[in-house]
Amino acid sequence: MAEAATVRRSRITPEREAELYEAVLDLLREVGYDALTMDAVAARTKSSKATLYRQWGGKPQLVVKAIRATKPGGDFSDADTGTLRGDLHAHMEHTDDCQLEQNAALMRGLAMAVHHNPDLLREFREQLIEPEMAEFRRVLQRAVDRGEIREDCPALDYVVHMMIGAFVTRGLIEDQPPTQAFLLSYIDAVVLPAFGAPLS
Amino acid sequence: MAEAATVRRSRITPEREAELYEAVLDLLREVGYDALTMDAVAARTKSSKATLYRQWGGKPQLVVKAIRATKPGGDFSDADTGTLRGDLHAHMEHTDDCQLEQNAALMRGLAMAVHHNPDLLREFREQLIEPEMAEFRRVLQRAVDRGEIREDCPALDYVVHMMIGAFVTRGLIEDQPPTQAFLLSYIDAVVLPAFGAPLS
Repeated sequence: MAEAATVRRSRITPEREAELYEAVLDLLREVGYDALTMDAVAARTKSSKATLYRQWGGKPQLVVKAIRATKPGGDFSDADTGTLRGDLHAHMEHTDDCQLEQNAALMRGLAMAVHHNPDLLREFREQLIEPEMAEFRRVLQRAVDRGEIREDCPALDYVVHMMIGAFVTRGLIEDQPPTQAFLLSYIDAVVLPAFGAPLS
Repeated sequence: MAEAATVRRSRITPEREAELYEAVLDLLREVGYDALTMDAVAARTKSSKATLYRQWGGKPQLVVKAIRATKPGGDFSDADTGTLRGDLHAHMEHTDDCQLEQNAALMRGLAMAVHHNPDLLREFREQLIEPEMAEFRRVLQRAVDRGEIREDCPALDYVVHMMIGAFVTRGLIEDQPPTQAFLLSYIDAVVLPAFGAPLS
C-alpha cells in the first residue's frame, strides 16, 4: 500500500521504477555500496538527482528498496502446508538458484557497508531483516500451535541466524553460491533437528 | 614449524613480525582488503616492499598470515574435556569479547574481497577455514566415538556453517558484535540439539 501511494504521488511508472532498481542493483554488484553514487544512478538511468532524492530520500533508502524489489511478492508465511518442514521447504523453493546467487552477491556487497553506515543498517533491518523475521515467527508459531515445536524451545530465537548463516557461509566454505538443494539439505540437517521438529 | 623456518631464513624477529602483522590488520580494518597496498604496509612499517614480497610472497599471503597470527596458539581440539558441550564451550572461552569483535570486523573486511580475489580465497581457505574445520572434525569424531553423536548425523557436514553463521549474522541482525555469552547460548540452543548431543 505504501509503495502504491509513493508511485502515484510521484508519477513514476512501475516499469520505470523497476528499471531504476535494476540499475541500482547492477551498480551495487559492480562497485559495492560505498562507491555507488546517486550521480552514477542518475547518469545510468537518465534521471535527475533531484527526482531520485525526492522519490527515495537518499542512497540507503534507494538501495534497500531496490533489494526489496527482488524478493518474490507476498508473505511466505501465508502458504500453510501443515508442517514446519513443508513451510520452510516451500519458502526456499520460491527462489531459484540464479536468484539465490544474485542475493548472495548483494549481501556480500552490503555486509561491510552496513557497519559504517548507520542509516543503511537501519533501513536494511527495518525493510529486509525484520519483515523476514516476522514471517519466520508466524511460521514457527503455527508449528508451536500444532505441537511440532515446544513453546520454550531455545532455538526459536535463532532461526534467522541459522538461515542467514547457511546462506552467507556457503560461499566462504565451499566457494559455491547457496543453492536450493543446499538450503533444503541444511534445513533438514540443522534447522528442524535444532527445533526438535519432525523431519517429514 | 613452517613459521619457524621462515623466520629463521629471513632473519625477521618474532617481534618485528608481530609489528608487521599489527600494521596489516590496522590497515585492513581501516581501508579494507582491496584498498590495502603493499606500499602502504611498507610505508607504515618502514620496510622495503622487496622484503615484504620475499618474506610473504604477496598481499593475499601476508593478509591471511596476519589474521592467522591473531588466533590463540595451539589446536583447540587438544583440550579434551570429555563431552562435546565441554569441548565447544572451552573453544569459545579461549577468545575474549574484544578479540571476537575484532575478528568479526576482519571477517567483514574480507567477505567481499575473497569473492573477486581467487588468490585470497585460496589462502583464506587453506590457512584459516580448513585448519579450523579439521579441529572441529577431531572434536566431533571424539563425540561420535563416545556415543554422543550418531556417526551418520547429517549435521556433521554443517558445523562450520552453523558456527560461522552465528558469528557473522550477529552484527547484521542485532547490531552487536558476537560475544562469548551469545556464542555459548547458540551452541546450547542450536548446535548441540542439531547433533542430538547431550546438553550437559
